[in-house]
Amino acid sequence: MCSLQHVNPRVRGIGDSPQSALQRLAADLTRQLTQGAQKPFKRVIDVSSGDPHKAGMKPISFVRQVLSACLYPELLEDKSLPPDVKTRVHRLLETCDGGSVGSYSESSGLPHVRQSIAEFITRRDAGVPSYAKDIFICAGSQRALMIVVKLMASGEGDARTGVLIPTPCPHTLPPVLDEAGAVAVPYELMEERDWAVDLEELHRAVAAARGRCEPRALYISNPGNPTGHLQDRTSIEDVIRFAAAQKLVLLVDEVFQDSVFEAGREFISYKKALFDMDKEFSQTVELISFHSLSSACMGECGLRAAYMETVNMDPEVMTFVDTMLCGDITTPVTGQLALEVMTNPPRPGEPSHDTYTQEVRLVRATLVQNAQRACRILNDLPGMSCRPATGGIYLYPHLHLPPECVEQAKALQLEADVLYCQQLLAEEGVFVGVGGSARNHHLRLCVLVPSDTLDEVLARLASFHLRLMGRFLSD
Amino acid sequence: MCSLQHVNPRVRGIGDSPQSALQRLAADLTRQLTQGAQKPFKRVIDVSSGDPHKAGMKPISFVRQVLSACLYPELLEDKSLPPDVKTRVHRLLETCDGGSVGSYSESSGLPHVRQSIAEFITRRDAGVPSYAKDIFICAGSQRALMIVVKLMASGEGDARTGVLIPTPCPHTLPPVLDEAGAVAVPYELMEERDWAVDLEELHRAVAAARGRCEPRALYISNPGNPTGHLQDRTSIEDVIRFAAAQKLVLLVDEVFQDSVFEAGREFISYKKALFDMDKEFSQTVELISFHSLSSACMGECGLRAAYMETVNMDPEVMTFVDTMLCGDITTPVTGQLALEVMTNPPRPGEPSHDTYTQEVRLVRATLVQNAQRACRILNDLPGMSCRPATGGIYLYPHLHLPPECVEQAKALQLEADVLYCQQLLAEEGVFVGVGGSARNHHLRLCVLVPSDTLDEVLARLASFHLRLMGRFLSD
Ligand SMILES: Cc1ncc(COP(=O)(O)O)c(C=O)c1O
Ligand SMILES: Cc1ncc(COP(=O)(O)O)c(C=O)c1O
Repeated sequence: MCSLQHVNPRVRGIGDSPQSALQRLAADLTRQLTQGAQKPFKRVIDVSSGDPHKAGMKPISFVRQVLSACLYPELLEDKSLPPDVKTRVHRLLETCDGGSVGSYSESSGLPHVRQSIAEFITRRDAGVPSYAKDIFICAGSQRALMIVVKLMASGEGDARTGVLIPTPCPHTLPPVLDEAGAVAVPYELMEERDWAVDLEELHRAVAAARGRCEPRALYISNPGNPTGHLQDRTSIEDVIRFAAAQKLVLLVDEVFQDSVFEAGREFISYKKALFDMDKEFSQTVELISFHSLSSACMGECGLRAAYMETVNMDPEVMTFVDTMLCGDITTPVTGQLALEVMTNPPRPGEPSHDTYTQEVRLVRATLVQNAQRACRILNDLPGMSCRPATGGIYLYPHLHLPPECVEQAKALQLEADVLYCQQLLAEEGVFVGVGGSARNHHLRLCVLVPSDTLDEVLARLASFHLRLMGRFLSD
Repeated sequence: MCSLQHVNPRVRGIGDSPQSALQRLAADLTRQLTQGAQKPFKRVIDVSSGDPHKAGMKPISFVRQVLSACLYPELLEDKSLPPDVKTRVHRLLETCDGGSVGSYSESSGLPHVRQSIAEFITRRDAGVPSYAKDIFICAGSQRALMIVVKLMASGEGDARTGVLIPTPCPHTLPPVLDEAGAVAVPYELMEERDWAVDLEELHRAVAAARGRCEPRALYISNPGNPTGHLQDRTSIEDVIRFAAAQKLVLLVDEVFQDSVFEAGREFISYKKALFDMDKEFSQTVELISFHSLSSACMGECGLRAAYMETVNMDPEVMTFVDTMLCGDITTPVTGQLALEVMTNPPRPGEPSHDTYTQEVRLVRATLVQNAQRACRILNDLPGMSCRPATGGIYLYPHLHLPPECVEQAKALQLEADVLYCQQLLAEEGVFVGVGGSARNHHLRLCVLVPSDTLDEVLARLASFHLRLMGRFLSD
């Protein structure tokens, strides 16, 4: 029998985020609307998390053309598919057992795809070598992270594995630690420095944690979800030195490495920065970097494929990653093939190159313009301030709410930003994420949406916000 | 730092099956062959586990046509796609957020797909109602099982959750219990009764387990992997009464429900049998049934999608299934859409109906003929006996090896069937699975392969087997 008292206490302990409650409300509103209910809005717009296609962004044609013909190779006779699609499909189907995407693959991923990923990383990092054996393909970067954290979770009481995580962090992160049985050790990002990582704060956090748990890993999201912060080389080196001194494994979520906004800035991977440092670091610091099909330019969240690259990890320990991946049997093969395309896009001169490049450029242009416009408009609202984003797909505006507003939320036993998001959703049909900081109030806003959708979001948000502020000012 | 001593003891405790070692050997041989090495065989044939497309079985066209156009809707303009493919694609894309398979879905699955599955179950079970709310879609039935077992794993020492599992069982099952932290409680299937479940043996197993753990669930595979046994109604009712008396949750792997060989026999689901029983059972016995795209007739293992239907489970407990599925974020959307097609195939009169039906019929015919032929040929070999299979995709022949052969294996610290499989693989390039029983020796053989592949497997196997037997008889 499975009664409540027999549910795995670890599972029972997985926290329910305020975001989930809002998600249910949003789903409920959408249901009401489809059933013909009258609301002040015609549809719910969800900008609470990164789901570009849901918001109306278009997929990259080459990815879809290749996948569709991999699924149904009879299409290869179709005249309308570009020849490099056909070549790619032949090459990819050769790597699938029995020439079918319906076969299981090796648990850690198709060897050819792992090799393409390694070559992509080597090119990205200006020649720092990457090896297929260090690449593990998983059903999403969330799953990859779960596998790693679960692998590292050990000990009891004050010997339990601790993982340093930023505040704010992706709202999907804390439940991963809960389920794995690791202790979250929060460190604050610095809003006044555009959400930079602060070295002193890392020291404070790790010192405060010792005695309560054994910190063994440091999670970083760069470019930051939800901050939009892009670390520069100095900042990355600082973090690496800190990790080395504290013997922490670096878990670096670099899923938005394809999204850097500011002219003159570029994405530097932790691995590249590490390998440019002294041997004392480059040969010892343990690093796991995550990248995903759910990246900004692909946005293929529903296909579920991602990879992690492991650096300086004990090979014996890594065999257990294999063991755990065997539990999933195989990462979805269609997703794996899309990863191959993402990391090995059409080259100059190939028939699909120009279209591919234009489509990616269009996503990036939309993203940059959206981020800048949204930041400007949010900063113009009274009681709202927003740091500019340099990368990623989110903005993270600060709400400066009147004390009465905070009191009202308290009376309802809610955080003020949670109440704000509930009311915004119910009154305007805009689903914005909640901040997730205990100390002050923020919103998370995904700006990787078509620009007219963003216009609508900002208009509805401004209207609600001004109404709210007016209500309290006139009271 | 993550050194070996810090690896999660639960993860370190996941057993490595003899099958994995053989898998590595098979992969190695294949690598050698592609690099031009000379062997007595040109390719390794893997019949150790169910991977129909790998073995050369063909996908069902309608499934692939629908998926390819869902991925690349521009194909809908293609004249060659049947009109019901187009209608289906429109309907399915409407259910995806933003009309794209690239969007995340609700964690428990797309509502429309859950509804189609519920309707399929209702039709299958002659009207016993099934509800979409009780259907959870996962990335494979293995993952679904992991989620359920993990949910139920609790307690320490002799209060740990125990799960009754058959001997023999799917080779992928024991690691699931290890990782979840549940205790395996083995019960023997009865070879002399064509691998039937024996009630007395279930009683013996559960009694022996009490005091060592708390048995809370009973896993059954029906039709059986690897036994090929199909339970009849009486046997199912016996198991249900046993589960009721012992307060066990029934975890029924019904993945091969689409594969019953014997004329006059039909698949009866546990749910149907349960609902035909008295209220004292039908309203109380907790049942979770699993079905998958990796079924016999679909064989779409690489797409990774499956579902479980929960019956009589505490709804509060079931919210934790949702919680755990949130950790995976979303089941691959292409796989979910294929599940919709599997459970809602083209109907009579629709353009694709005949082709669909013929293709499915062809898979079934191949399977039946293969199973019968293989069984006959195996039984003709000296030192080999094989019970006929009534369903599923495996045969499970018994090896009666000369004592010298068993001694030789012992000297190498191996089970005799493991040594047999190693030598068969190395000498003939045929990868057959190992039995997995401590008491006697068996092979597992997937017969869902093209019939000429089966011919080759049987010829190589016979040649090896006769050589081996001859070696010992002439010694
Ligand atoms: C920081 C971060 N990592 C990863 C992901 C994607 O997760 P997955 O690869 O599992 O789809 C997201 C999605 O929004 C994210 O924000
Ligand atoms: C008994 C059994 N269940 C399930 C599966 C399939 O697992 P999944 O649905 O995770 O592909 C198999 C595959 O061979 C099996 O034999």
